[in-house]
Amino acid sequence: MNNDSSDVKTFLKRSFSGKTISQMYYAKRNHITEEMKYVAEIENEDPEVIRQEIALGKLIIPSNINHTSLKPMGVGKKVSIKINANIGNSAVTSDIDNELHKLNLAVKFGADTVMDLSTGGDLNKIREAIIKASPVPVGTVPIYQVVTEVKKIEDITPELLLDIIELQAKQGVDYMTVHCGVLYEYLPLVKNRITGIVSRGGSILALWMTKHKKQNPLYEHYDKILEIARKYDVTLSLGDGLRPGCLADASDEAQFAELETLGELTQRAWEKDVQVMIEGPGHLPLDQIEMNVKKEQEICKEAPFYVLGPLVTDIAPGYDHITSAIGATMAGFHGASLLCYVTPKEHLGLPELEDVRQGVIAYRIAAHAADVARGYKNSRDRDDKLSKARFEFDWDRQFELSLDPETARRMHDETLPHQAHKQAEFCSMCGPKFCSMHITREMNRFLEKQEQDELASKLEFGTK
Amino acid sequence: MNNDSSDVKTFLKRSFSGKTISQMYYAKRNHITEEMKYVAEIENEDPEVIRQEIALGKLIIPSNINHTSLKPMGVGKKVSIKINANIGNSAVTSDIDNELHKLNLAVKFGADTVMDLSTGGDLNKIREAIIKASPVPVGTVPIYQVVTEVKKIEDITPELLLDIIELQAKQGVDYMTVHCGVLYEYLPLVKNRITGIVSRGGSILALWMTKHKKQNPLYEHYDKILEIARKYDVTLSLGDGLRPGCLADASDEAQFAELETLGELTQRAWEKDVQVMIEGPGHLPLDQIEMNVKKEQEICKEAPFYVLGPLVTDIAPGYDHITSAIGATMAGFHGASLLCYVTPKEHLGLPELEDVRQGVIAYRIAAHAADVARGYKNSRDRDDKLSKARFEFDWDRQFELSLDPETARRMHDETLPHQAHKQAEFCSMCGPKFCSMHITREMNRFLEKQEQDELASKLEFGTK
Repeated sequence: MNNDSSDVKTFLKRSFSGKTISQMYYAKRNHITEEMKYVAEIENEDPEVIRQEIALGKLIIPSNINHTSLKPMGVGKKVSIKINANIGNSAVTSDIDNELHKLNLAVKFGADTVMDLSTGGDLNKIREAIIKASPVPVGTVPIYQVVTEVKKIEDITPELLLDIIELQAKQGVDYMTVHCGVLYEYLPLVKNRITGIVSRGGSILALWMTKHKKQNPLYEHYDKILEIARKYDVTLSLGDGLRPGCLADASDEAQFAELETLGELTQRAWEKDVQVMIEGPGHLPLDQIEMNVKKEQEICKEAPFYVLGPLVTDIAPGYDHITSAIGATMAGFHGASLLCYVTPKEHLGLPELEDVRQGVIAYRIAAHAADVARGYKNSRDRDDKLSKARFEFDWDRQFELSLDPETARRMHDETLPHQAHKQAEFCSMCGPKFCSMHITREMNRFLEKQEQDELASKLEFGTK
Repeated sequence: MNNDSSDVKTFLKRSFSGKTISQMYYAKRNHITEEMKYVAEIENEDPEVIRQEIALGKLIIPSNINHTSLKPMGVGKKVSIKINANIGNSAVTSDIDNELHKLNLAVKFGADTVMDLSTGGDLNKIREAIIKASPVPVGTVPIYQVVTEVKKIEDITPELLLDIIELQAKQGVDYMTVHCGVLYEYLPLVKNRITGIVSRGGSILALWMTKHKKQNPLYEHYDKILEIARKYDVTLSLGDGLRPGCLADASDEAQFAELETLGELTQRAWEKDVQVMIEGPGHLPLDQIEMNVKKEQEICKEAPFYVLGPLVTDIAPGYDHITSAIGATMAGFHGASLLCYVTPKEHLGLPELEDVRQGVIAYRIAAHAADVARGYKNSRDRDDKLSKARFEFDWDRQFELSLDPETARRMHDETLPHQAHKQAEFCSMCGPKFCSMHITREMNRFLEKQEQDELASKLEFGTK
């Protein structure tokens, strides 16, 4: 949606009397910002509706005042469902160019946001390059950088946490995952889980709390985080550090205890005009997805829900873009607003370029199918156009309208490469004699001719 | 499930007084056949339950008396959800070995049934080879062969149709798609559709009826088809010749008019003790899937529902294994019993080996996720075992338990190829410092040591 970087607008017109504050601040005070107008335009929605939704916390526009290349986008139930692509290198492979390739590929295929989850190399430089190059909102998990600055997890200090958050905010990060809801008292609740804590941030904080016997510093210093977020208009993505890591651990006490806390933290953020979204699982059996979305919407008063999948089975490593796209479609249908992609490499290794493509396409499918199913505006138009092109055997148009034209064309051309076949009334799947649409068209032509003949003979009869 | 061909049993013990008749015949007369016992065993179910379900038409065991290499399997809501893989060559490429490769690959990765949809080459020979080699039920669409025997579709005669059906039945085909419900009077109902008729069989019959201005010969001669089916115990797969070919055409008058007829035909089949399943769409928006399954179950009195996907969006050619696996999971969750796979090549070309693998795995995911979601027996056990292996960093066990061990291992080994890494407490996705499960285990070890220390100091105190 945001992939035409040529018409980047300059926003940042949000200074009232020299003080830059959040979209929510203005929304509550009945000001429609440039960002709101832009989002309203691309979503074909009334700017006043966008403003109202933001004021209520039901819609967010993650747009750090220092992310100048950004084309704003909205996340919430009144707009189309969005998808996020995670990029970023690991400690082993560190290459800025490669990450920028991933960014460009992700945006090209339709990622609405990206998260830079880099954990190795010159993190500040990589992040700077990504923010500068990205037309879509950039998210991070600041605690990943914090960990690289200490020798052992227990050496983390609250000051270091806040410093890194402010550093990244200043750089222009649009939204940050902060696991403020993983409370010390919830840790015993994961004891009988199969996979324990599977959120990196959650596990880091849990180990810190266990060793120090102290409360989560992100919870203790939440007010300071809100101050920083408000200053740069960073959207807080309240992380689910205790999300389930397998079907067996889904919807357990630990998960929902944290969700209750996220509900409180949402209210506190809104009081300070800070935009918020809520992160969700992870791994859930299909039959628990609707309940999970409804629960989040109730407890967090319809703050946008940002889900990671969820995977609907654990038995398909290598295919978790599929297991999770199934869950993501269901989640979107029931009210989730941002779907975080999962690539085929999940659980196995760091995704490379082809994995990014597979992940993004699977999630464009999920988001679109969910939009169609929830009856969102004219979302089915593109399906109808493609289906018309299909029935008319206009192959080029069919490829053009598809989510991944290159792949569709390549698969078709494997057996019928010639340009002449781009109007052929069949493909190699059925061949001309067995193509149902070709036969249907033959029937229609026959019926048409018959009608004309009948009409002609009636007219002839009439003149006699 | 049926992929260990070493212990093929000899069934065919169904002759009472020299007359071989259908599973349903015996089920209704309180006889538990060898096939029923076998299915009960592999499904961990009481044979009497299997018999009752077959008697009521709610469960089928497609097992032609002449398919001697078959290991019987059941399709119905009381057993696990099954998947079908379509194989078969086209008029262009005809190669028996290649089709047998596809068969073996499909069965290896978990196809529960296969359909031979060949339309070119020596059809009888290919079919014979597939039936001989297949441990799983083999399905066909006899009208495809009929078309190859005539110059023009209108040259088809009822006699030719019945002859080919009998020929294939005699060969050992376990189930056949027959589009008996496409009635002449329903044809005007597709007039305003975007993609007309997309079932090959449906379109062939529609053209025939239009040119002859006569009723569907498969409907007219349904009793004769039942006689053949009863003789060899061929399960009739009542085809949905008017299924929707795109979202816009879903759940329309044409589709449901045919379904009503399929309901009548089901009753007529059951009266003759012929086993039946009902074919379903195709293309459906996610929100219409539950309604479609419920409607079929009501109209066809819970005859097993055999769905093709359905695809939940039309805009992803090249990825229709994913768009349709989403729909198939939903359909299975709501009560469909057999899921016909769709490969990435759907709408673009004839699937090759790699497409078969992708299709089968996507559908194993769908069937399994649906079984878990509907709470089917102990279906989640495998997820739990894999999750435990994951948390214990037992990589080999994790690969072993996964749906496609080769692919999972390959993806892991791309970055960490050494055997030593098969017990490593991390993978390249996060690296050791950022692995949440590694950190959780560190926390657990710390807590354990602390407890032991506390206990030790208490004991020490006690002895003082």
